[in-house]
Amino acid sequence: MAKAMVYIQSGGPTSVINSSLYGAIMEAKKHPEINAIYGSLNGIEGLLTDNIIDLGKEDPEQIELLKQTPGSILGTSRHKLPKDFHDPEYATILETCKKHNIGYVFVNGGNDSMDTCMKLSLLCKEKGLDIKVMGVPKTVDNDLAETDHSLGFPSAAKYVINTVKEIIIDAVCYKKGKVYIIEVMGRNAGWLTAAVDMLPEGIRPDLIYLPEQKFDMEDFLKRVHDLYEEKGNAIVAVSEGIEFERDMSKVKYDSFGHAQLGGAGADLANIVEEKFGYKIRAIELSLPQRAFSFLTSKVDSKEAQKCGELAVKKAVKGMTGKMIAIKRVSTAPYKVSYKAVNIKKIANVEQKVPAAWVKDQGHMTQEFRDYLFPLIQGELKVQMENGIIKSTVLKRVLVK
Amino acid sequence: MAKAMVYIQSGGPTSVINSSLYGAIMEAKKHPEINAIYGSLNGIEGLLTDNIIDLGKEDPEQIELLKQTPGSILGTSRHKLPKDFHDPEYATILETCKKHNIGYVFVNGGNDSMDTCMKLSLLCKEKGLDIKVMGVPKTVDNDLAETDHSLGFPSAAKYVINTVKEIIIDAVCYKKGKVYIIEVMGRNAGWLTAAVDMLPEGIRPDLIYLPEQKFDMEDFLKRVHDLYEEKGNAIVAVSEGIEFERDMSKVKYDSFGHAQLGGAGADLANIVEEKFGYKIRAIELSLPQRAFSFLTSKVDSKEAQKCGELAVKKAVKGMTGKMIAIKRVSTAPYKVSYKAVNIKKIANVEQKVPAAWVKDQGHMTQEFRDYLFPLIQGELKVQMENGIIKSTVLKRVLVK
Repeated sequence: MAKAMVYIQSGGPTSVINSSLYGAIMEAKKHPEINAIYGSLNGIEGLLTDNIIDLGKEDPEQIELLKQTPGSILGTSRHKLPKDFHDPEYATILETCKKHNIGYVFVNGGNDSMDTCMKLSLLCKEKGLDIKVMGVPKTVDNDLAETDHSLGFPSAAKYVINTVKEIIIDAVCYKKGKVYIIEVMGRNAGWLTAAVDMLPEGIRPDLIYLPEQKFDMEDFLKRVHDLYEEKGNAIVAVSEGIEFERDMSKVKYDSFGHAQLGGAGADLANIVEEKFGYKIRAIELSLPQRAFSFLTSKVDSKEAQKCGELAVKKAVKGMTGKMIAIKRVSTAPYKVSYKAVNIKKIANVEQKVPAAWVKDQGHMTQEFRDYLFPLIQGELKVQMENGIIKSTVLKRVLVK
Repeated sequence: MAKAMVYIQSGGPTSVINSSLYGAIMEAKKHPEINAIYGSLNGIEGLLTDNIIDLGKEDPEQIELLKQTPGSILGTSRHKLPKDFHDPEYATILETCKKHNIGYVFVNGGNDSMDTCMKLSLLCKEKGLDIKVMGVPKTVDNDLAETDHSLGFPSAAKYVINTVKEIIIDAVCYKKGKVYIIEVMGRNAGWLTAAVDMLPEGIRPDLIYLPEQKFDMEDFLKRVHDLYEEKGNAIVAVSEGIEFERDMSKVKYDSFGHAQLGGAGADLANIVEEKFGYKIRAIELSLPQRAFSFLTSKVDSKEAQKCGELAVKKAVKGMTGKMIAIKRVSTAPYKVSYKAVNIKKIANVEQKVPAAWVKDQGHMTQEFRDYLFPLIQGELKVQMENGIIKSTVLKRVLVK
């Protein structure tokens, strides 16, 4: 018997999270087992509050534009589901599923969201319900386990690499320059920060600091001092998650217990300025890292669609409790295959930059560069209208 | 008798300052009156220290790439020339000019740089020297007088509009969102900040603050409060130059006496957070605003080249002490002509956003939108190499 599918976007957005949704919608249309394509508004909260929209009622042109629309078009959430399956939240979710005859649930998110995905799939199994729950990976942090890389990371890396390049071109045109501290996203994993090492010599940051390495303040200050005195500027890329002595009383925590960091670059800049009196500029690359369609990697965009498609394909075949993951078959030429991984291996696990890939405070190994190189290839041709990028606008027709 | 030309880039870079240089180089090649094309390294400092490079010795492919290279490829400077023509600095400059047989000097910059341009042209006239000095306008701030708009502003506006759009798409995907304070460049003129009002309703900042208007803290806090309580977020664009009570002891000044502002957004964010306890995110758009080739306006790029060409054409015909300016002939269809304006009318003058164009704390008039609309049209097709934008690299062969 045909059933409805519902798609959930969860956690922080990426430039390609809507591309996965696009892939899932396109695939679902091919399967008679799926008789309605729904979206849950604001992540799992849509199922908790019965805010489910009918994606079948959207204009096809708007669906096409999903491929160049950042953000989570369905809205997102950081809500963490309770541990106890007797919690009334679960009854509410199942009620919504029953009401809308939902047989397929897709959770597109990072490691926290895969916790949601895992709980939902276990719940359905435990209750003996015929609801397939599949995960689609995404996170600009690239810290998902069991997959060669996370969807969204390649585009974010491409943005970071190119933007840092342009910042450096601007920075070096002053004779007596400044110390630039560029803060890159990455709470516990430094993949995005490390990406800047892809830039050619002369146009890449002098120093790179990842959260995986112990931050040595004294050594950092000495290096900045020596660089500035030698060449009149110093360009430093730091991950938002690097740890050093700071006023932790001001740090806030989200509902998953993660510190809401940010400002590491600004704090370091203040320390350098106070210590040496150099002119300084702290630049936080901020939200555009994960929400900038102009530098979407074509490889990333295609893989994001593919993972959305495969999640649907597998669910229709009866698979549940798994996430679609990317397996690299070869690097040159770049070839991947896809696999379905047990969600338990992914939920709440963080994959960090291997220590063996970090050479020094400003360089990564060739192995890292070989890993990243194919991911940032190709550009998306974006549609513009009067000088402004076109993005999806949904009607958001609620399912009654 | 044929003479050499020297090109000076001055003040803050823009995405298209090198496009003007490109135009000047291409035009100069057509004129037998110019027998060498030189660049002064780091603005006027190149003439002061005899650091002059031969642009004729550069690879033509690298010259082509100038059109997609941000920053000031010749290096820049904020050095202010002394008032007194008896100052030894002038003797040094003239010595360098004599040594290299320079007959044409081009100064590409904003209103401060036009001060340099004016002084040089007056000096040459006073000394009876056959050296033509012409100005080429640029500044992302759009505050140059006597020109419809300043080169670099349209591209910066296009970057700001599109980036703010993508930030808002990311921001609105959270149910309970944050207060976003987005800080845009513009010391005394709010053109760039006002540009965000080009975004369609629903996807544009709720509030816009320009330095031309008196900032009313109480009213600002009330508006932010009401927006947040009503829709769960508030999106505010502020110019870096807005004035409110802050710790001015920390503000620094450049050699032209301008306050080195920045951080207005972060300061406002702190005030809102302390007052209401809302989740808040301060985003400084920072250097990419003026150094981001991917969103260069095609109109801006072409006009930048044209102004470089015309400066050369006019100088060869004997003109001096003028800046090439843009005159708008019609808005729809967009048509411009170019004129040469006496540099005295431009140097040190700031053109602000007309008060009549500001409707409310979040809206500009249709007149403003009509003014800006044609400027942001068209995209540059940028050359990429392995996922990274190609930029000019110069050999910088010094002229002996």
